[in-house]
Amino acid sequence: MPADTRDRIVAATCELFRRQGMTGTGLKQIARSAGAPFGSIYHFFPGGKAQLADEAIRASGAMYRDLVLAIFNQSGPDLAATIRTAFAAAAENLIATDYADACPIATIALEVASTDDALRQATADVFTDWIEQGAKRIARSGLPPAVCRSFIAGFITSLEGAFVLSRALRSPEPLLTAGETVAAAVTIALATAVE
Amino acid sequence: MPADTRDRIVAATCELFRRQGMTGTGLKQIARSAGAPFGSIYHFFPGGKAQLADEAIRASGAMYRDLVLAIFNQSGPDLAATIRTAFAAAAENLIATDYADACPIATIALEVASTDDALRQATADVFTDWIEQGAKRIARSGLPPAVCRSFIAGFITSLEGAFVLSRALRSPEPLLTAGETVAAAVTIALATAVE
Repeated sequence: MPADTRDRIVAATCELFRRQGMTGTGLKQIARSAGAPFGSIYHFFPGGKAQLADEAIRASGAMYRDLVLAIFNQSGPDLAATIRTAFAAAAENLIATDYADACPIATIALEVASTDDALRQATADVFTDWIEQGAKRIARSGLPPAVCRSFIAGFITSLEGAFVLSRALRSPEPLLTAGETVAAAVTIALATAVE
Repeated sequence: MPADTRDRIVAATCELFRRQGMTGTGLKQIARSAGAPFGSIYHFFPGGKAQLADEAIRASGAMYRDLVLAIFNQSGPDLAATIRTAFAAAAENLIATDYADACPIATIALEVASTDDALRQATADVFTDWIEQGAKRIARSGLPPAVCRSFIAGFITSLEGAFVLSRALRSPEPLLTAGETVAAAVTIALATAVE
């Protein structure tokens, strides 16, 4: 069985989970979408859907972390402006993908929160990683570590909630409003840190 | 067929949807949970799961709107303090229910966003109603209508995102951080409105 079949299965799983969540995604649909024989799923993932879901959550989480946190690499000294740009870019991307291309693990995180503790832990590990890595990048702005952590947690939280509303309403407005909310919070945090 | 059976079916559906989303909730589980014969679901809901889901989304949405917006009825002049209290109360409630009792429609909203346009519209109607009703209550604070609308949209967005992270991490921290983010945004909005 060629090794790239495994990669295709994981990629197809990530894509289907992002669009429709985990519960509604069957292994047959994953195999079809990956262009892989059904049996290859159990060949590469003897633990079945649970094992594949765990890997897909962690893989999507790492990819999305790099995508989202990249804005803080190229950001100038105006953190509030960076925030507004990030939310505007998320809104543009959401519109361009007919409101489908948002956080790859949010739907699963809610589906498993009270129903599957192993997969809940996988989503928790992803969010923890985002907050830790994000706080490190923000630290370059000179804000105190605790403020960086709060700021990035507020940023991720607002982004996640805005995706829920923007996808439901098919409107960029919640994302743009959330950008303003987080920009206001960082403006106050910066003012307080300078005092 | 007693009419209260219908009410029990809707209530059981709302509760199961809140905990595990719609996709993973079967009609048999709903009937069992409602203590109702399986046939009674199609008796009261000839359109099956789609019709029942539409009604459950709207019913949960109206109940949750009244619960969440109640904080603005009793709120004093310090809107930022009201926000912090609201997020702290949501965190306490989440802990008390073992991280299960959060927004009743968020999971479904994500599940159906790109897969079922009729139910997506039901979730959109609920969020629109929350924003409109919330903006009306905030208007009593004397803020301009556009600011009230942005503020309540930012509030709901942050609450939704914080539920995603708090449930995944089994921690009140995202909710409390989100409360600080929204409180900071309202502080700036109030300062700007007064100028």
